[in-house]
Amino acid sequence: MIHRPEVVKNFPSWARQTLEKMCALGLVEDIAAILARCMLCATLADALQDADYVQESVFERVDVKQAVSLEIDALMENKTIVGSSSSGIPASQFTEKCRHRHHFLIAHPVNPPHLVPVVELVPAPWTDTKTLEDVRLFMAQVGQIPVIVNREIDGFILNRLQGALLNEAFALYEKGYASLQDIDATISHGLGLRWSFMGPFETIDLNAPGGLADYAARLGNMYYELARVRQAKPWPQDVIKRADEERRQTLSRTDLAARRTWRDDVLMQLLHFKQKL
Amino acid sequence: MIHRPEVVKNFPSWARQTLEKMCALGLVEDIAAILARCMLCATLADALQDADYVQESVFERVDVKQAVSLEIDALMENKTIVGSSSSGIPASQFTEKCRHRHHFLIAHPVNPPHLVPVVELVPAPWTDTKTLEDVRLFMAQVGQIPVIVNREIDGFILNRLQGALLNEAFALYEKGYASLQDIDATISHGLGLRWSFMGPFETIDLNAPGGLADYAARLGNMYYELARVRQAKPWPQDVIKRADEERRQTLSRTDLAARRTWRDDVLMQLLHFKQKL
Repeated sequence: MIHRPEVVKNFPSWARQTLEKMCALGLVEDIAAILARCMLCATLADALQDADYVQESVFERVDVKQAVSLEIDALMENKTIVGSSSSGIPASQFTEKCRHRHHFLIAHPVNPPHLVPVVELVPAPWTDTKTLEDVRLFMAQVGQIPVIVNREIDGFILNRLQGALLNEAFALYEKGYASLQDIDATISHGLGLRWSFMGPFETIDLNAPGGLADYAARLGNMYYELARVRQAKPWPQDVIKRADEERRQTLSRTDLAARRTWRDDVLMQLLHFKQKL
Repeated sequence: MIHRPEVVKNFPSWARQTLEKMCALGLVEDIAAILARCMLCATLADALQDADYVQESVFERVDVKQAVSLEIDALMENKTIVGSSSSGIPASQFTEKCRHRHHFLIAHPVNPPHLVPVVELVPAPWTDTKTLEDVRLFMAQVGQIPVIVNREIDGFILNRLQGALLNEAFALYEKGYASLQDIDATISHGLGLRWSFMGPFETIDLNAPGGLADYAARLGNMYYELARVRQAKPWPQDVIKRADEERRQTLSRTDLAARRTWRDDVLMQLLHFKQKL
């Protein structure tokens, strides 16, 4: 049963438009061949027929994930592997009762997945080693960058790192140390430049004459002291309200969608840029 | 007195080489004119003569900063403004005794400053409002992106944000959730792409249909829960050792310098790419 018919209706034109933009940058070649490989199915049974790999991307709530996993489990073939687009909930919370649970794992892509290549693979305790390895190879084959999270942790790696940055950003904003715009600029015109092609460890490895250990000896204590004044706390409602209002002065609510399209266009060009490096 | 004569000796060829690379990308125009504006002085008194602005960049330790600030203070003219390249120590810790302390502030650039535009401006309690405003205008005029840190805090904004990410990255690595390389890839092929042209607040503003407040309502609690399991602690010595060894397998110590040159070349091209956007 199709829950959101508008997605099926809009897919062909969205896909063609996106592929045309990507083709103009040389990121894909044969648009017709790609579209010919896409098949829209009216039922889950149709979609699962003879499927080697399923990317399950339903709403992220344990009960919703559990229900669809059991539905897939009942219909899937023995060879089928199921990756869930969960961005923080480990697979053990919703695949335990599946008959094929050794073929389920988390495969967490980043939005938009055709432009941001990383995908986090997180096995449940009962996921087959071979299942993990097969998905890793498959993701690499289709041009994604698979990273392996060796065992389950809430938020996995990506959102734990994002959360650490956001929690500090909200704490600084709350106490009025800087405007939202200036905190954003510190990343977008500062730290984020290196991070678009080097991770945080490589960054510090190159930032001291003797490499990572040298950097840690010089600055490790400073980072410990900075963290000591922080305690985990929810983002306060009044701070969220103030932050949202500051954003709305920069970008009105009605312009959000256009800005998202702009973001994706920039990501596409950035991907093109990185491929040329 | 010149403490490091090799810097003076190497500067002209380094500057010419760097400017030639930048010129090839259209980032600067008249190399000869730029070089003609550079003057190397043998004494602090010579360097300070008739100076409007001083970028003090000595080793980052309170006693060293204090000594040079007092030396500058004794020689500077009344119009001169002094920005310190401190990356985490507030100016109040080393400028209190300066006669011209209202003309001192932090101006923290990011390495390499000719390729990473952000510069954090942090006034001490006694810095003149006009001094801050003058430096902000001056930095913007020379093509930097000044951000204002409204009042002093250890680590300012940039290194507090970097520290939050590093502390989480080290904690994940310590417990074996992923390899150093995979944690780095999560940023360099994931989160870092958007952060190279959008800050963390704009990122979440675009990541929920209704904007930032909507995102906070959906995911704020998750980020709180992720932070709750963390406590500030120093990076353990054995973890640093293990991380350094993993890095040295990827990049030998003797290749660090070449990789830094590569990083700067990529940053230069990224700057060129962003200017074209």
